[in-house]
Amino acid sequence: MAHIDLLNDMPGILGLLQFRPATAKPLMELAEVLLRGESTLTRGERELIAAQVSKLNDCQFCYNSHGTQAALQLDGGWGTVDAVIATSDGGPLSDRFRALLRIAVAVQGGGRNVTPDLVDAAKEAKATDLEIHDAVLIAAAFSMYNRYVDGLATWAPAERNDYLESGRRIVTRGYWSDERSSQE
Amino acid sequence: MAHIDLLNDMPGILGLLQFRPATAKPLMELAEVLLRGESTLTRGERELIAAQVSKLNDCQFCYNSHGTQAALQLDGGWGTVDAVIATSDGGPLSDRFRALLRIAVAVQGGGRNVTPDLVDAAKEAKATDLEIHDAVLIAAAFSMYNRYVDGLATWAPAERNDYLESGRRIVTRGYWSDERSSQE
Repeated sequence: MAHIDLLNDMPGILGLLQFRPATAKPLMELAEVLLRGESTLTRGERELIAAQVSKLNDCQFCYNSHGTQAALQLDGGWGTVDAVIATSDGGPLSDRFRALLRIAVAVQGGGRNVTPDLVDAAKEAKATDLEIHDAVLIAAAFSMYNRYVDGLATWAPAERNDYLESGRRIVTRGYWSDERSSQE
Repeated sequence: MAHIDLLNDMPGILGLLQFRPATAKPLMELAEVLLRGESTLTRGERELIAAQVSKLNDCQFCYNSHGTQAALQLDGGWGTVDAVIATSDGGPLSDRFRALLRIAVAVQGGGRNVTPDLVDAAKEAKATDLEIHDAVLIAAAFSMYNRYVDGLATWAPAERNDYLESGRRIVTRGYWSDERSSQE
């Protein structure tokens, strides 16, 4: 049971978003820009960074949600996601992605953990400044979402399959749209 | 020097916001709602939670910025802020605020650190569900802002007084307004 009465029975961040619409809007707009907006990183790669950070923070709802998003949008599906998470080191993906994931893993522990060596390695692997920026901000943002979801003790569906319907909806419709905003 | 070329010389999060306007908007809208929007917590109290989390994360820019905001809006100014930060336990403020600050301090370490005992203590001190929600989300949000600012190695002015002009402007004009948005 959540620490507060959310006045709804939705799991994870969904119950929190419904409880507090004024914060839901910027929270979901941020997720939309970072994970689905214009970028030279694929949506699958960005969801994988979110899943990796959520796994390190032991946030079951966020890990399964964003792991599902990554699996739906990456070659190899959950097999690729599992291979990456097993080592926290980018698994079978490109050197560029692996270097960005190492930066994200550092951010999860604390901003000051990002060393010049980690950044130099990403630049050598042809990561752009914007990609490095976004890897840091995705990892920072999930340091927030994870704490929000677990700090209020929301409930999480147990099985991966429980996240599939919601995941498919997000792949199609996104985390936030002006259309949804205007319906409020 | 920042890890990436921000194409501007502004300190802390300001340089990052200018570098990436698409993420700046939801990031600042979130700060505006949480720290200055309608609430039964005063703006000074909410800025103090932000300053406390930033101090624990050793984020100099965010600590001095939000410490200044708190000092400008709390009785006792920096004296009150320093008394709170010295113990991480709410200093001279109300039992209700102290209980909420303890929850925020727990969130800084990780969402799962928020125990039912911490939440019960806040409810016994007459904190509302919405105040508990907001204390958790402010602490979670600064777990993001702090990592963003330091994960990209932005520079920070050294002295408290360096933050005063910007602090006064935020007290008057806020972190974000639709007016500012529409000028983009």
